[in-house]
Amino acid sequence: MSEMKQPASALSSPRFCNMGTFMRMQKVESAKELDFVIAGAPFDTASSFRSGSRFGPSAIRSISAMMKPNNVIMQVNIMDELKGGDIGDFNITPGYIHPSYEAIEAGITNILKENACPVVLGGDHSITLAELRAAAKKYGPVALVHFDSHSDLCDEVFGQKYNHGTPFRRALEEHLIDASHSIQIGMRGSLYDPDEHKLAEKLGMKLVPAHKIRELGLEALTEMILERVEDKPCFLTFDIDFVDPAYAPGTGTPEVGGFTSLEALTLVRSIKDLNYVGFDVVEVLPAYDHGEITAYLAANLVFEFLSILAYRKEVNMI
Amino acid sequence: MSEMKQPASALSSPRFCNMGTFMRMQKVESAKELDFVIAGAPFDTASSFRSGSRFGPSAIRSISAMMKPNNVIMQVNIMDELKGGDIGDFNITPGYIHPSYEAIEAGITNILKENACPVVLGGDHSITLAELRAAAKKYGPVALVHFDSHSDLCDEVFGQKYNHGTPFRRALEEHLIDASHSIQIGMRGSLYDPDEHKLAEKLGMKLVPAHKIRELGLEALTEMILERVEDKPCFLTFDIDFVDPAYAPGTGTPEVGGFTSLEALTLVRSIKDLNYVGFDVVEVLPAYDHGEITAYLAANLVFEFLSILAYRKEVNMI
Amino acid sequence: MSEMKQPASALSSPRFCNMGTFMRMQKVESAKELDFVIAGAPFDTASSFRSGSRFGPSAIRSISAMMKPNNVIMQVNIMDELKGGDIGDFNITPGYIHPSYEAIEAGITNILKENACPVVLGGDHSITLAELRAAAKKYGPVALVHFDSHSDLCDEVFGQKYNHGTPFRRALEEHLIDASHSIQIGMRGSLYDPDEHKLAEKLGMKLVPAHKIRELGLEALTEMILERVEDKPCFLTFDIDFVDPAYAPGTGTPEVGGFTSLEALTLVRSIKDLNYVGFDVVEVLPAYDHGEITAYLAANLVFEFLSILAYRKEVNMI
Amino acid sequence: MSEMKQPASALSSPRFCNMGTFMRMQKVESAKELDFVIAGAPFDTASSFRSGSRFGPSAIRSISAMMKPNNVIMQVNIMDELKGGDIGDFNITPGYIHPSYEAIEAGITNILKENACPVVLGGDHSITLAELRAAAKKYGPVALVHFDSHSDLCDEVFGQKYNHGTPFRRALEEHLIDASHSIQIGMRGSLYDPDEHKLAEKLGMKLVPAHKIRELGLEALTEMILERVEDKPCFLTFDIDFVDPAYAPGTGTPEVGGFTSLEALTLVRSIKDLNYVGFDVVEVLPAYDHGEITAYLAANLVFEFLSILAYRKEVNMI
Amino acid sequence: MSEMKQPASALSSPRFCNMGTFMRMQKVESAKELDFVIAGAPFDTASSFRSGSRFGPSAIRSISAMMKPNNVIMQVNIMDELKGGDIGDFNITPGYIHPSYEAIEAGITNILKENACPVVLGGDHSITLAELRAAAKKYGPVALVHFDSHSDLCDEVFGQKYNHGTPFRRALEEHLIDASHSIQIGMRGSLYDPDEHKLAEKLGMKLVPAHKIRELGLEALTEMILERVEDKPCFLTFDIDFVDPAYAPGTGTPEVGGFTSLEALTLVRSIKDLNYVGFDVVEVLPAYDHGEITAYLAANLVFEFLSILAYRKEVNMI
Amino acid sequence: MSEMKQPASALSSPRFCNMGTFMRMQKVESAKELDFVIAGAPFDTASSFRSGSRFGPSAIRSISAMMKPNNVIMQVNIMDELKGGDIGDFNITPGYIHPSYEAIEAGITNILKENACPVVLGGDHSITLAELRAAAKKYGPVALVHFDSHSDLCDEVFGQKYNHGTPFRRALEEHLIDASHSIQIGMRGSLYDPDEHKLAEKLGMKLVPAHKIRELGLEALTEMILERVEDKPCFLTFDIDFVDPAYAPGTGTPEVGGFTSLEALTLVRSIKDLNYVGFDVVEVLPAYDHGEITAYLAANLVFEFLSILAYRKEVNMI
Repeated sequence: MSEMKQPASALSSPRFCNMGTFMRMQKVESAKELDFVIAGAPFDTASSFRSGSRFGPSAIRSISAMMKPNNVIMQVNIMDELKGGDIGDFNITPGYIHPSYEAIEAGITNILKENACPVVLGGDHSITLAELRAAAKKYGPVALVHFDSHSDLCDEVFGQKYNHGTPFRRALEEHLIDASHSIQIGMRGSLYDPDEHKLAEKLGMKLVPAHKIRELGLEALTEMILERVEDKPCFLTFDIDFVDPAYAPGTGTPEVGGFTSLEALTLVRSIKDLNYVGFDVVEVLPAYDHGEITAYLAANLVFEFLSILAYRKEVNMI
Repeated sequence: MSEMKQPASALSSPRFCNMGTFMRMQKVESAKELDFVIAGAPFDTASSFRSGSRFGPSAIRSISAMMKPNNVIMQVNIMDELKGGDIGDFNITPGYIHPSYEAIEAGITNILKENACPVVLGGDHSITLAELRAAAKKYGPVALVHFDSHSDLCDEVFGQKYNHGTPFRRALEEHLIDASHSIQIGMRGSLYDPDEHKLAEKLGMKLVPAHKIRELGLEALTEMILERVEDKPCFLTFDIDFVDPAYAPGTGTPEVGGFTSLEALTLVRSIKDLNYVGFDVVEVLPAYDHGEITAYLAANLVFEFLSILAYRKEVNMI
Repeated sequence: MSEMKQPASALSSPRFCNMGTFMRMQKVESAKELDFVIAGAPFDTASSFRSGSRFGPSAIRSISAMMKPNNVIMQVNIMDELKGGDIGDFNITPGYIHPSYEAIEAGITNILKENACPVVLGGDHSITLAELRAAAKKYGPVALVHFDSHSDLCDEVFGQKYNHGTPFRRALEEHLIDASHSIQIGMRGSLYDPDEHKLAEKLGMKLVPAHKIRELGLEALTEMILERVEDKPCFLTFDIDFVDPAYAPGTGTPEVGGFTSLEALTLVRSIKDLNYVGFDVVEVLPAYDHGEITAYLAANLVFEFLSILAYRKEVNMI
Repeated sequence: MSEMKQPASALSSPRFCNMGTFMRMQKVESAKELDFVIAGAPFDTASSFRSGSRFGPSAIRSISAMMKPNNVIMQVNIMDELKGGDIGDFNITPGYIHPSYEAIEAGITNILKENACPVVLGGDHSITLAELRAAAKKYGPVALVHFDSHSDLCDEVFGQKYNHGTPFRRALEEHLIDASHSIQIGMRGSLYDPDEHKLAEKLGMKLVPAHKIRELGLEALTEMILERVEDKPCFLTFDIDFVDPAYAPGTGTPEVGGFTSLEALTLVRSIKDLNYVGFDVVEVLPAYDHGEITAYLAANLVFEFLSILAYRKEVNMI
Repeated sequence: MSEMKQPASALSSPRFCNMGTFMRMQKVESAKELDFVIAGAPFDTASSFRSGSRFGPSAIRSISAMMKPNNVIMQVNIMDELKGGDIGDFNITPGYIHPSYEAIEAGITNILKENACPVVLGGDHSITLAELRAAAKKYGPVALVHFDSHSDLCDEVFGQKYNHGTPFRRALEEHLIDASHSIQIGMRGSLYDPDEHKLAEKLGMKLVPAHKIRELGLEALTEMILERVEDKPCFLTFDIDFVDPAYAPGTGTPEVGGFTSLEALTLVRSIKDLNYVGFDVVEVLPAYDHGEITAYLAANLVFEFLSILAYRKEVNMI
Repeated sequence: MSEMKQPASALSSPRFCNMGTFMRMQKVESAKELDFVIAGAPFDTASSFRSGSRFGPSAIRSISAMMKPNNVIMQVNIMDELKGGDIGDFNITPGYIHPSYEAIEAGITNILKENACPVVLGGDHSITLAELRAAAKKYGPVALVHFDSHSDLCDEVFGQKYNHGTPFRRALEEHLIDASHSIQIGMRGSLYDPDEHKLAEKLGMKLVPAHKIRELGLEALTEMILERVEDKPCFLTFDIDFVDPAYAPGTGTPEVGGFTSLEALTLVRSIKDLNYVGFDVVEVLPAYDHGEITAYLAANLVFEFLSILAYRKEVNMI
């Protein structure tokens, strides 16, 4: 593992060949000596509306063949700076959330114990609870930076405690996240509970709805995130429905009036100075993703996150 | 009818169950004692290019199952404030515009005579003429607020007076709208008549093309609308092609260079202080609507309009 | 309820209006005094490959607007002969199989206790277990006539007992079906267990794989079914993947080399002289159903089953 | 070149007209000295369910680029034997059936007066009435050979006499077809009127429903058609929904249990010895035609008909 | 390599996980000690009409996750009987046929020199020429069994010798195939050269057009193939457009009036007693393949071929 | 009419060529006395990822039927001011770049020698090299204004010098463009070479990446373009992937974080005062273009360019 290979360049090998791992990176069996590990959590059992995000990891990996290793804005080459690979998919159990949670938590734990950063491709948003369980075991309650159009703080959905609308309520109850350093960004759309946004504050979280972001501007939002999180171990979770359905049609519960792909990429890039311990991008649903544009945006978000890791390693922050 | 039921919450009943009415509201047989009535006008015979908007009402209702009753920006719960329901589709005659106009006009008349506000799902834009006939019978010529990429003021199309490109020319001739308080917003794209935009002014209307809106900004536009309409009885008609095809691909005559979903929602919300007597959203064409994003935007526009009615009732304006 | 209405004729009301129930039949609240009840079981949590059949009931109902009441081959009018309606969807819990089973079983029990015949729109094939639980409570173990490309007799899938690949194994264990009068028809495709087809016989079932049907011919198969079932109370379950993906692309686990729509309809019609106590059509998955052809085939299969009920009532068999 | 023409305005000529030519044949301005003329009738106003067949002519022409001039079974080269070309689309009026009928009738009359054979691309089935009006003016009542899943003999649809469900009822009333030499082939699916098939006989027509064809076999059917029509001037009208939706998903009112593309082509080829005076293929609806397979089948049916003309010319029958 | 692993069972690991090789077989680096090797040739530069079959190998591999190792009709388990794996894609050069031919020929040569059987996923049909070059180097001119709707015997297309319409003309010229033991099956559709089918015979080939197969029946065809090929080293090439577009819409030059998936599978299975030295399935074009049904049929054809290899090994024929 | 022409054979002319005309303009045979000529270059052989842009010209022409001649912002009627027409497609050779280059260069040369402005519909971006060869023969090295998300300055792709990633490197080497007056606009996305953007400057070009444009604003960018190009003969090449995939999903190598359709149209309009000698819009790929929105945007860009020509003629600049 000491000699890391650059993935095949599309200048010498066509990008539609030899698919199967993210960016056609090497397939790895463990996180040993790695800086990051890509993993899939193809679980969609907890979806309340459209199901099918189980095909999200496959779709993101497939189109990620279009990605290249240099980030021209961040001025890094992710494969030069970092050692990493794709470990494949966690062995989840379709239809059953608890054994799936166990598989995901175990998988993340294995990555974290080698001091690698897990980068997870969902799957519905319920998976983040399992990831946070693993992260909190190592780091204690983590700061959560949560991009989404929904706060996912419901107590129950359909009378059930575990669903893609409840993971952060559970995470708070289980003391997996440090509410005082956490922030939820981009919430919008009609609601059942008129006080759903206020609920976040009652639970100690900070929630910035989309219409407030429009008032603040992206720069002030960036400041707000950095101030909120400080240097706490931080988990970044990105629900693709943060982005407007024009840019991300392939998702289960889209919300109109959302953000552009440029805004999404800019925001992630702007918070590069946090102390990241994990990342996921969730809710990509290929059956509704015409032209693969949603999966490709998700792949780019992963790439920006890896660029942040590369930048941080370059400047000796990790 | 005195006890109005909230539609089933997706927290207890999945949103893909029991479809058939807008937001799974109750089905109503008349407008009696109601504040608003949802109705479909699935008529696409007057379309000049793509046909198929006859499936618009069905598509909007289907995806409207995703909507919830609280508007967090307007701070209202539409079902708490308002009594309303879905009366189904007007009994239009496919292929024949005049009997269809009679059916629509009769249906709107029945709603208006109960002092309920009609909220119509199109259908092509020709339907608005029939709606305005009913409105003018009750209110006299109404103020028209018209979002669209086309002015729909042609005298004839294909040698015919009645087409989805002519409704407002006919409405002016029939004295259904008060030109001096009416405004057309968002026109753009190539034209047959170089003076088509000036024609609006000759006819006494105010027309603000898209490129002027870009110069003015949305706030000045809002001001302009409010000043133009004043407190006249006002009919709001929203052609979904006001929005850019990236956000609303499912329509018959899209125009590029358009507005975002955020801009559309913001604009409608910004003119909440008008004296509304009717609303429609038209030209949703499901056969071209990948991922149902156009229908969902239309459903949200209906929701914003209902939120305005709720807000106005709350503050005793209606 | 004594005067049953024919659904609106498309000759006077367009078929794309007023959707929401199967064939735009009346919505019913109970099975009281009815011959049959249409119900949806929009549950797809037990799917092993593609999810999304939760939208099956909605899609089947939507396109069923194209159906008309007379069956020209069976020489019956289903709405003249029978009293029936659409009760909507069972209140299943997405993501959770056991509460969903309870809801389905309770719903079917309510229908059966009024001596109406349940006609269920799936949903994945796991739902049939719950239906059989209700049927067996009333009738004892029933004869099963099972059209499918898979036998669904696995003991476990992903280490779990309840999945859409296991319902008939569970049904046998729970003594819900009378193996000696049951028959499985159409199995084909590659297998994990080379003896999967023989397993059926070990369990007392009769399984006729697709390639045997090609040798036998459809008439001999019909004879075989009638002889096998005799006059036992009989439940007919139809997995749409019995049909070739050319005719039914919208399904979760298609198998090539299958039957045509003509063969499917002919087969169902040919076994009209059985003593039916229930029916379902399952595994319609709209996200993969281009042109709605799968949903329309499913709607026609429901129609053929209702025609059988009508025929049997006409000749005093029920 | 000194006088440049403005392109046709969509205010006088619909924008879906006159795109390309069939098989990239020459564009012709008249039928003078020609054996056949391809023409489009992009009219879908009379559709009762899905609209959009106005794009049928354009789609058939586009994919017809795949066709080549030799028919290996008929042993003819259509372009060697025949003189012909594509005259573009009749100048129909979207939304208005009577002026459209006039345009189609005038166009066909112009073709027939040059003794060329009209070959029309629909459009919905209502167009055939106009074509028959022109044909009967020249030939008197013609024999009709009608492939379809519906008999299109309704007296009224939605209370209207002119619709795509009524053309042959009108044609009989107007004495355009000679019922005693006409035959309708392939009818199937559920019906409003239980006696709809018998109605054909009451009107003097011969109707062979799909299930009778299955009993007879294709060869006996061929015999039946030839015996029925004899040597009368014969108009062949082919509704693409004669074919099963697996083979022809792109149509407005598909019916399952239909014929294969092989059966359709074989049948047309088998009745080559009739005295043809006109042909149309109707109800191709591109918005539902995935992979263009319906349009390509329609193009092949046109090709088979042209091959029949070529064969008949070669053997001196025309 | 001595212990071959069965690919993961979908009973313990979901089939949408860990994609990337055919049937999720092991990835291999060479053919050493293997019975067969799966390889992709994602080359579509030689396509005359629709391009995009470069994504064929990826699509076939992706959906092949649905395949399982037992063939119930052939009574073999392909992974028990055979050692094999997926070597990935040949390093072809998009846009350039000669370097691509070199890469494919070299790849096949490497497989053949280990006495493994190459099983190639196309790509357009031009690739077969390169495969035959490698095969002929080892075996001398091979017998060709060629399923297709086109004979691909053109001398030139667009003035070029190398195109997907010319591979077998070139192969004959290069003495790669033994015409006297070769057979072309299924040709149909309109032609440029009226004698194109006769040309095959002039070149010493046997060509059985589709309409002759319909007269002969499949059993006589099987006999004819077996008699023609005898025990010569035999290469089986299967162009997916042999099958009707209803069953295989995702291809570049579909022809209507084709064969069903059942007929295709039955035919391949029926010629199991030939002395196979190579196989390919070509012209799968995912961008037109709705519901992945074409790719899945191609995957099943590969499976049937592997089953033949397994059967032949079991009975000691290889 | 006495000599009927056989339609072009697909053996000499690809079947995706010459379908319809742009905006239903007249078809022209030469550029004689014309101001502009529309031409298609349906060549996609040089595509590195998705192929299929060979159908770009056909798709753009088809949807261009929606365009009308008046540009309300530019205040011109393109057909009143200009003489022009559509000459059809250059007779490129699919699969072979050099003969295709010759056909394109010859075609452009013929247009330029009549002093008409070529307006080319691609096709992949490799075609621009051939256009520039023709332009430079007449004008010497031209100024290039290049909108794109990629700089297309690679030296080799897949070891080949001619590919859609290399045209401008070749153009510089062949002295076809005057680097000192050329500008590349909009580059973004991940890169293989970290210095790819700097490479442009080494080669003497000016490259403005997307993130710099965001800092500068569109007005400063416009200034920069005008200052760079001055009054040199200028060729405008527009790769549709300059625009974000939300607005232009139908393309081969989309990049997220791009520009809106409004920004694209505004930019083109803003540089109306350049001395244009040619234009192309490239990389429209219809198989991924849902709702035809990409093709329609491309048609609008052509229209804006024609409007510039009309404006310049009106003010006597040409």
